[in-house]
Amino acid sequence: MRAPPLLSINQATTRGQWSLAAAIEGYARAGIRGIGVWPDALAECGLGEARRRLADRGMAVTSYAGGELFVDQKGRFQPPDRARRLIDEAAALGAPCLVSVVGGLPAGSRDLAGARNRARDGLAALLPLARAAGVILAIEPVHPMRAAEVSCINTLGQANELCDALGEGAGIMIDAYHVWWDPALAAEIARAGRRIAGLQLCDWLVPTAALANDRGMMGDGVIDLAALFAMVRAAGYAGACEAEIMSDREWWRRDPDEVVAVCIERFARIADEH
Amino acid sequence: MRAPPLLSINQATTRGQWSLAAAIEGYARAGIRGIGVWPDALAECGLGEARRRLADRGMAVTSYAGGELFVDQKGRFQPPDRARRLIDEAAALGAPCLVSVVGGLPAGSRDLAGARNRARDGLAALLPLARAAGVILAIEPVHPMRAAEVSCINTLGQANELCDALGEGAGIMIDAYHVWWDPALAAEIARAGRRIAGLQLCDWLVPTAALANDRGMMGDGVIDLAALFAMVRAAGYAGACEAEIMSDREWWRRDPDEVVAVCIERFARIADEH
Repeated sequence: MRAPPLLSINQATTRGQWSLAAAIEGYARAGIRGIGVWPDALAECGLGEARRRLADRGMAVTSYAGGELFVDQKGRFQPPDRARRLIDEAAALGAPCLVSVVGGLPAGSRDLAGARNRARDGLAALLPLARAAGVILAIEPVHPMRAAEVSCINTLGQANELCDALGEGAGIMIDAYHVWWDPALAAEIARAGRRIAGLQLCDWLVPTAALANDRGMMGDGVIDLAALFAMVRAAGYAGACEAEIMSDREWWRRDPDEVVAVCIERFARIADEH
Repeated sequence: MRAPPLLSINQATTRGQWSLAAAIEGYARAGIRGIGVWPDALAECGLGEARRRLADRGMAVTSYAGGELFVDQKGRFQPPDRARRLIDEAAALGAPCLVSVVGGLPAGSRDLAGARNRARDGLAALLPLARAAGVILAIEPVHPMRAAEVSCINTLGQANELCDALGEGAGIMIDAYHVWWDPALAAEIARAGRRIAGLQLCDWLVPTAALANDRGMMGDGVIDLAALFAMVRAAGYAGACEAEIMSDREWWRRDPDEVVAVCIERFARIADEH
């Protein structure tokens, strides 16, 4: 099957199997034109080498994932220079956005409101650099089950409020996995409009076995992805859609070429329904 | 330590260890005056026997848990008479409320909005009986990670909107585990006001190992329970607070008398901070 032009694949989908170089090659072999890149894989490949390989294969970087920007998953504050380096790297890769997952609670803290305020201030402090670099800070609301460890920004409503406060240069990354349950989903996507900097796709399995890395392939779960895709398009987003499937139990165990082929087939159905 | 008068214990905390009869006896032995009861345990004990034992020990039923009212965890519609029977049983136990967890998606469905509409209509259909029986339908928003299987009502905002629509006889059960992450927590608790029909307490562990039955003892996690308790009291709720700790890895493995003693000690700290 020919790869739909909007489909990008986030390299987390083939993590542990393909290096960045192998993912660029493997995705391109299947006709994919976009990739979501992670910092650890970039560091291993080297920025210059990654840029050459991307250019050789005509592959665009559709997002650069920052990990937790301000507090890591152990509750430690990130070094202040880290996020600035990520913005530089995103720009060097030609990525339109840095996926901005802000981090959860600092170790020992129960002050979620305080963490949210710090995240807002942290994003505001990064914005001048991001604007100068032409990189959108794409705030990603993260599922409430990861509020303590991954991000204290847990709804599209919060992301929209942050964008209201932050102004130009702030955007929103919509990940189906994190937001599908939200009763305000349609309203907040419409409100987001041109702020939408990307759409990441996977599915919610029933039952879900673990809080991390148990995502389903599009079509294998309960998310109405065709409806979500339609909402995001109607809001004005016409850019790439990344398949991003972290899956300990299934997709990380399969042949990556097959995983890519299934992503293509499943995304084509979503786009066709639209 | 003397048991704080507001503390009730939901029998799910000692599930698999103590029958209803044993829980009534064990909680009373520790000075506890309230218990949250589940239908399977009531059926095993028998309603008449349960009433006698409760009366003998001066123990009040602070809530009756309905399980999923409309769709079970396998996605099957519940028999229509089931919820009516639960209301009758709640009334017979003298419980002020039926904990109303509405159920998630029917098997094969991705229509969350449809499930939400059916839940509203189902609650509306039950209300005349509940009003006549003097039993509040205490709508419990359930964590978004259980939206597909346990309840499609996932925020206090939804519960408040339902109460607006349903009118007299509808209330809200606030379970710390389900709502602590909500950016609208304070506002929606204030809005709930006298609708608050109960407060259930446990804690969110970091890391959390599973989506079900990995709750922490109050004080062992990241929820600011003292702040939550204060908000609920300020909103006008002066009733019982149930410790409800479903814990495969720890509390279900301990001596139930010890679990009860720890609940007493930890709740006393929360109430003291207030």
